[in-house]
Amino acid sequence: MLLLVGRQAEIESGLASRLGASDPLRQRLEVIDAPEVVAMDEAPASALRGKRRSSMRLAIEAVRDGRADACLSAGNTGALMAISRFVLRMLPDIERPAIAFQMPNRRGGTTTMLDLGANVDCEPAHLLQFGLMGSALVTALQGRESPSVALLNIGEELIKGNDTVKQAGVLLRESGLNYVGYAEGNDIYGGEVDVIVCDGFVGNVALKTSEGLAQMMGQFIREEFGRSLVSKLMALAAAPVLRRFKHRVDPDRYNGAALVGLRGVVFKSHGSASPAAFEAALRRAHDAAGNRLLDRIRDSLEQVRARSGAPDGSAAVALSP
Amino acid sequence: MLLLVGRQAEIESGLASRLGASDPLRQRLEVIDAPEVVAMDEAPASALRGKRRSSMRLAIEAVRDGRADACLSAGNTGALMAISRFVLRMLPDIERPAIAFQMPNRRGGTTTMLDLGANVDCEPAHLLQFGLMGSALVTALQGRESPSVALLNIGEELIKGNDTVKQAGVLLRESGLNYVGYAEGNDIYGGEVDVIVCDGFVGNVALKTSEGLAQMMGQFIREEFGRSLVSKLMALAAAPVLRRFKHRVDPDRYNGAALVGLRGVVFKSHGSASPAAFEAALRRAHDAAGNRLLDRIRDSLEQVRARSGAPDGSAAVALSP
Repeated sequence: MLLLVGRQAEIESGLASRLGASDPLRQRLEVIDAPEVVAMDEAPASALRGKRRSSMRLAIEAVRDGRADACLSAGNTGALMAISRFVLRMLPDIERPAIAFQMPNRRGGTTTMLDLGANVDCEPAHLLQFGLMGSALVTALQGRESPSVALLNIGEELIKGNDTVKQAGVLLRESGLNYVGYAEGNDIYGGEVDVIVCDGFVGNVALKTSEGLAQMMGQFIREEFGRSLVSKLMALAAAPVLRRFKHRVDPDRYNGAALVGLRGVVFKSHGSASPAAFEAALRRAHDAAGNRLLDRIRDSLEQVRARSGAPDGSAAVALSP
Repeated sequence: MLLLVGRQAEIESGLASRLGASDPLRQRLEVIDAPEVVAMDEAPASALRGKRRSSMRLAIEAVRDGRADACLSAGNTGALMAISRFVLRMLPDIERPAIAFQMPNRRGGTTTMLDLGANVDCEPAHLLQFGLMGSALVTALQGRESPSVALLNIGEELIKGNDTVKQAGVLLRESGLNYVGYAEGNDIYGGEVDVIVCDGFVGNVALKTSEGLAQMMGQFIREEFGRSLVSKLMALAAAPVLRRFKHRVDPDRYNGAALVGLRGVVFKSHGSASPAAFEAALRRAHDAAGNRLLDRIRDSLEQVRARSGAPDGSAAVALSP
């Protein structure tokens, strides 16, 4: 069952033009009317306080009320985060939500990176929590038990990272996670490690830098193949190969970032996602809920708490900043 | 005149096999014997204290003593930075040296980014100083007066950056530089701005992430064109275009990072640079010295001091953290 939350009339007319009323697929869709819309450039606080009947708010409330197992939105990220946090609340012992994204890597798999922008100043304990959540996410989405976790840091040659990263390394080493040490920026694409943990400022810069470089390289390829009649013929000759290359780095396939740390499964699609990209994100949200992402995060937290010897129910020292 | 600093016997025998003794080019080369070598993995402190006759030390001393206008090294970055700082000392009012690099951009030009790893925790005043130095570097290397300067920050949608970046924005706006506001990671490759300022942790991650992504895309192109006899034939057909593409993103052309903030011009080449890449770095070091990089940085500092109304000779408030 898929709940479509938004302006009912618009959704119904969109559906009517694509599906017959008796189509079995139509029977699996339910429309929930939400008269208000959160604008892409709206301040999160305004969306949270002023729009109690927005599609975003009602979709997240459906998760809270158990009507939905997961929420997927292609809307305003800041508003989605603020409303999710308010409506769903955080998991116990998780202080900050994080945005986690699966990046393609050289080995043909994906590397999960978090945080990508929800938090700018992180304490070591937050980075530990990101490690726990990223690890649980990889298990839920890829079925990989005990995925490897690394901390993003800078080169051997120079000053070896800041104090926060060093202290987070100590916490991760004691966490029971499969912590493998430091990674550098190039390791995001190397495929040697499953999860890379960093603060949201650094993660956002790495993601946006990658988008910018990929766009530049794509533009250069197009320009070179479009330069003359001869190079256009060469592009035609090489078209099948260029298509396969494009497929391998196609951002549509990697669409869908998880907002982790909440008491509910929430995913964010790119705002300008194609139908194929939106489907990829929907699949991720479905898999995360189906493979019990939240239970896995809770179990990991329990393990860290048990290892650190804290009494039942109280937060372990390592879990608080 | 080019001074070659290193193990004399090895350099002489290398030269002898390439140049006749009466070759006019040979007359423009002078060999300075340096019996000690700083290892690539050596701790900067050990290189600084223990190797007073290393090639790195003697080359930097040649700059200090006025025998050379600039130093170029392909060695250990941390050691190069530590020795440069000790031997040359910092420019007045500059507290931290920075590593600046010209990245290729979509418009066919370069975007200068700093710091790329010399400093992990920066105060707003350090970011202002990086802006001044980056601006002077672009003028010296590209002949562009009043280049645009932006601060690296994260997306509109989310929390708008950390306090350090916000405060640095205030200082830059008052600096007299052509400050244009915030940039995001993708703007590094957009070509809309000449200088992008960030702390060394973020800059290093952005640089390494770019290296990793470029390697992955290069590998995917090679794999797809090498997959079968047919695709190999397609690669052959498209070879001239692929070569032109490769040339546009060839890291050799962009080799040569400036260590700015010192009382002398010091450049760092990639450790595994090809001869062409080393030549590109040598050209950058030559241009920086020839176009009075240090005077330009000093003039910028004077202007900031004058604008902030501080008495002559004393450091302006904005220039200290």
